[in-house]
Amino acid sequence: MAALIDQPLKTSGSSVTLSNKKIEEFLIELNYWQLSVISHIKQINRTYQFKNFTLAMAFANQITDLAEQANHHPRICVEWGKVNISWWTHSIAGLSVNDFIMAARCDKAYQYAG
Amino acid sequence: MAALIDQPLKTSGSSVTLSNKKIEEFLIELNYWQLSVISHIKQINRTYQFKNFTLAMAFANQITDLAEQANHHPRICVEWGKVNISWWTHSIAGLSVNDFIMAARCDKAYQYAG
Repeated sequence: MAALIDQPLKTSGSSVTLSNKKIEEFLIELNYWQLSVISHIKQINRTYQFKNFTLAMAFANQITDLAEQANHHPRICVEWGKVNISWWTHSIAGLSVNDFIMAARCDKAYQYAG
Repeated sequence: MAALIDQPLKTSGSSVTLSNKKIEEFLIELNYWQLSVISHIKQINRTYQFKNFTLAMAFANQITDLAEQANHHPRICVEWGKVNISWWTHSIAGLSVNDFIMAARCDKAYQYAG
């Protein structure tokens, strides 16, 4: 299968909850991301480091552009020198393939940021 | 004493931890803000509502401008339709008057936002 970064978002993908096995596979591919469960909802999250607050917020704005283009939105938390991003799919209250595709896009954006 | 919104940040303010009594007084003045304790550090936080993700992020950028001007930075979490802001003072690992002054400035910015 193509790497996550090369995949378009799946129109039907947001309605399919991933199996634990599939989640594990994707987390090996995106090895900076961690699984967490908040209010019974599985999410993936990663913290990115920056030199100050302004650079952190600039990255948050880049991720906002990606999210708007994809019409799929994360939780983004910015504080001095860091940005934490969480992805999950609201319609299924869990993880879909689209969350991992967006996570891969965040990682790619980070390569060129800050 | 002048309302929080009318006060300049205190240069020395960031080194003085507020008493519980003072915190209570300020929370009455800023009645949408809540006190929480995270990893033994007192913080104040408020969630603001917006119509979509873009408007929420626009508000986060406004708060970033206020923070840069004041050289005092919050934690800002953005998700679809909401922005949660937390203030505390890193140097004292707790709450200073500057956190409440910045909270008042956030409330004022929200009156004109989204």
